[in-house]
Amino acid sequence: MPDTNAPGTTPIALDAMGGDHAPHEIVAGAVRAVREHGISVILVGAPRPLQDALARQHATGEIPIVRAEESLAMNEGALASLRRPRSSIAVACHLVRRGDACAVVSAGSTAGIVATGKLRLRAQHGVLRPAIAVALPTLPTPTVLLDAGANAEVKPEMLVQFAHLGVAYAETALEIPAPRVGLLTIGSEPEKGNKLVKRAHELLTAAPDLDFAGNVEGHDLLTGVVDVIVTDGFTGNVALKTMEGSVRYAFTELREAIRESPAARLGGMLQRRRLKDLHRRLDPEVHGGAVLLGLAGTVVIAHGASQAQGVAAACVLATRLARQGVVARIGERLAASHRPHRLW
Amino acid sequence: MPDTNAPGTTPIALDAMGGDHAPHEIVAGAVRAVREHGISVILVGAPRPLQDALARQHATGEIPIVRAEESLAMNEGALASLRRPRSSIAVACHLVRRGDACAVVSAGSTAGIVATGKLRLRAQHGVLRPAIAVALPTLPTPTVLLDAGANAEVKPEMLVQFAHLGVAYAETALEIPAPRVGLLTIGSEPEKGNKLVKRAHELLTAAPDLDFAGNVEGHDLLTGVVDVIVTDGFTGNVALKTMEGSVRYAFTELREAIRESPAARLGGMLQRRRLKDLHRRLDPEVHGGAVLLGLAGTVVIAHGASQAQGVAAACVLATRLARQGVVARIGERLAASHRPHRLW
Repeated sequence: MPDTNAPGTTPIALDAMGGDHAPHEIVAGAVRAVREHGISVILVGAPRPLQDALARQHATGEIPIVRAEESLAMNEGALASLRRPRSSIAVACHLVRRGDACAVVSAGSTAGIVATGKLRLRAQHGVLRPAIAVALPTLPTPTVLLDAGANAEVKPEMLVQFAHLGVAYAETALEIPAPRVGLLTIGSEPEKGNKLVKRAHELLTAAPDLDFAGNVEGHDLLTGVVDVIVTDGFTGNVALKTMEGSVRYAFTELREAIRESPAARLGGMLQRRRLKDLHRRLDPEVHGGAVLLGLAGTVVIAHGASQAQGVAAACVLATRLARQGVVARIGERLAASHRPHRLW
Repeated sequence: MPDTNAPGTTPIALDAMGGDHAPHEIVAGAVRAVREHGISVILVGAPRPLQDALARQHATGEIPIVRAEESLAMNEGALASLRRPRSSIAVACHLVRRGDACAVVSAGSTAGIVATGKLRLRAQHGVLRPAIAVALPTLPTPTVLLDAGANAEVKPEMLVQFAHLGVAYAETALEIPAPRVGLLTIGSEPEKGNKLVKRAHELLTAAPDLDFAGNVEGHDLLTGVVDVIVTDGFTGNVALKTMEGSVRYAFTELREAIRESPAARLGGMLQRRRLKDLHRRLDPEVHGGAVLLGLAGTVVIAHGASQAQGVAAACVLATRLARQGVVARIGERLAASHRPHRLW
């Protein structure tokens, strides 16, 4: 893997106004990204609060600021992004479009980021719908799940495209050679599922440029049986949140068990390193968040509750995606899949 | 709660040929149900193997056998149930229909049980689609999730009916007073989700006989925020399997952490009781399995991998459901919901 950045590279456009802890934690994360990871960053937002936040980090003048007078609130969605062409996320997208930045990072409202990205960056040539990809913490390599929530309603052809988007992500940012694709449904036989997945199963089977491994089920999300799992954004979002909630539930139960007796506490302390590793793998503060794939530019959606560490991790992920050329790789894959070939 | 059984009550019709470990573990479970829980059971299946299995349990002649020469294989689904009117699950349904049994218990193929149940027991009056309900291990009382896989495609009206089925289950078998209902989707605001849930949200809001608490998300499955969670059978099945897989994943990671050092092992041993409690709550061997609701008779679907303990637990659950009159309660709720009233 190349180092995440080199002198003179195009900066990340960081939406400094999006997120539960904006702007202070966002700015603190930017300072970490610059100082600890050598990433070049542009802060996008209201200059005065950003200057104050930089001063609090003893970093006055260290990171350039691009003005955006408006911002989207965390509970605002698609409509607000239409109404506010000068929001911080819209301006960040514009910087990428002009070539002044290589990627957008935002911890703002997911619906707002998706809508603004589609409007300001546009979908890549040939992409029916951009999709949100998350890297699930399987070993030895992560499993890419998409769509994790951008499209509540999809058509079978879109699931095939999601497979290409996910494979490009796995190949580039995760460096997985020849990623295997699974289709999320409710049984392993090809005829299991709803109309959408039955048709998608046929299309994926016929797709010559995909290593389609067949159906996978909910319990396969964390077993690493495939490298990329495709599903519609409704099912994917429910599955992702169910996974997060279930792991949190199991850990809470465990923590209570550890508290139960002094000896158990001792044992618990000794397990802590292992648990920290696991927590690290599951924590968006560490892995950097979700990626909106299929746009003519890289967009990383950091967790809304991101603090400095999470923002810095999202900048690292965005830099890696941009440097590894995930957008170009998606373009190649889709161009190849559009070439005429006999399906049967 | 009344005791699970009393002398002279109607027996359970137990499909002795369904399940990965049929007939021996099924028969062993029947013997446990009879001896340990005082439940009266009829074994349905091929007489000779069942007599052999009873002999191995030193229970020759202790449990009546009703002959069924055919059975559905674990990988057989809906079509096979049409082709085999004399399968063990079909005969078990027939016993309930004739009033010779109060409930069906089977560890056979879920698709086969659902198809056979719909064909032989019929849907209850007014029920559009029977649904599979599972009790999730929340505290202090379980949360009912349905549909967990009977209907991959549903209409909004069906989700409202699922709410009534789930509430009746929660009120009777789980003894939860005034159960609160949530709709599984991908955001807490009413407009979040796909077309199906947006319309279902309107219908549930307007339903006068339901305590509708609004949208819930995947991470709410194990928090107990509502008592009944309704969803389509595709999403519900993915969510349930994701939950099971995620909890298993967290526990496997934990077990490896416990093995890591002798002191950690000691601590781990001390936590074991707590973990066993948790495992008990999550284990279908203990809680008895899923329930097919909306048929003119009680049907419990034990886990396919059920051994004697799981089969006995399923018989206990079936007895409780039958004695508490879940079918009658569903009938009352649906009749009330069909009475004319102004919706807006």
